Amino acid sequence: MEFKNSIFIATSLDGYIADKNGGIDWLLSVPNPDHDDMGYNSFMENIDALVMGRVTYETVLGFQGEWPYPRPVFVLSNTLNSIPDHLNEKVFLIQGKPKEILETIHSKGFSRLYIDGGKTIQSFLKEGLINELIITTIPILLGGGFSLFGELNSLINFELKSSKVYLGNYVQNHFIRLKK
Amino acid sequence: MEFKNSIFIATSLDGYIADKNGGIDWLLSVPNPDHDDMGYNSFMENIDALVMGRVTYETVLGFQGEWPYPRPVFVLSNTLNSIPDHLNEKVFLIQGKPKEILETIHSKGFSRLYIDGGKTIQSFLKEGLINELIITTIPILLGGGFSLFGELNSLINFELKSSKVYLGNYVQNHFIRLKK
Repeated sequence: MEFKNSIFIATSLDGYIADKNGGIDWLLSVPNPDHDDMGYNSFMENIDALVMGRVTYETVLGFQGEWPYPRPVFVLSNTLNSIPDHLNEKVFLIQGKPKEILETIHSKGFSRLYIDGGKTIQSFLKEGLINELIITTIPILLGGGFSLFGELNSLINFELKSSKVYLGNYVQNHFIRLKK
Repeated sequence: MEFKNSIFIATSLDGYIADKNGGIDWLLSVPNPDHDDMGYNSFMENIDALVMGRVTYETVLGFQGEWPYPRPVFVLSNTLNSIPDHLNEKVFLIQGKPKEILETIHSKGFSRLYIDGGKTIQSFLKEGLINELIITTIPILLGGGFSLFGELNSLINFELKSSKVYLGNYVQNHFIRLKK
């Protein structure tokens, strides 16, 4: 079985995923009258489960409307003890280092994972555990905020699989990690 | 006369223009047998002069071969007193804040400027003086180095003019600053 860990995320031109106040309003700066999903649903079709940090989980939980994920979501947290009843069978709490977490999730039969949330992404990247990046660049300079990428101990090389423009303004690049 | 200040530069996926040791070898990670200039010469045709910091100037000066710029180069420096004889009429030392520098250069008849060098670009961006960004993304995570973008006091919105892939691996995005 092939294991794959993917990132699907939008950043500002200067590489932030949230502004100085944690806000993400700027993600919606370009009109999207036809609700173009910018490849999200076709990406999600090839995902078995999600892994995200507590902060991202609680942000999504705060959104209005139904729980948005059609796949099991594993939430990394050392502090949460329970999840709301309506998320039974949808959300699972998990603890540990990235490699341990992956072993646990793989053992449950989920091999293609969507890794989400700033800290979670950075910790997986640092361990060399991300195979695929799908990054949509929003044409705005925020000048500060929470960076998608953090410090690494060594270079990671990728190759471009595809590049596509959405809504005339958002460039979505799809990168695959090069084998060492 | 219309004044324009442009950036034409390459960055890593994580937004660095030089690695932790100041190195730029990673810029050449993809084979380029036909010496594709990735739009550089056609960009330069619409430039009247360059503005760069001392560090960038001295880096270029250290390259083998002839002085590469076909346009006058204004070098920002508070410490340099002279330039080599062979660069007379090609390189001019200049001092001051970005707006003062621009007034001086504009008064000499140069209106379309290529702003280059990390610190120089950041100081011009911070003053809201950059109209055009042409950024080529190299598919590598460096994990540290000198960032193209720095802190800003306020957001800057751009629109995408074009996006093009070079050598199958480098995505070059051309952004124009939106009028306020």
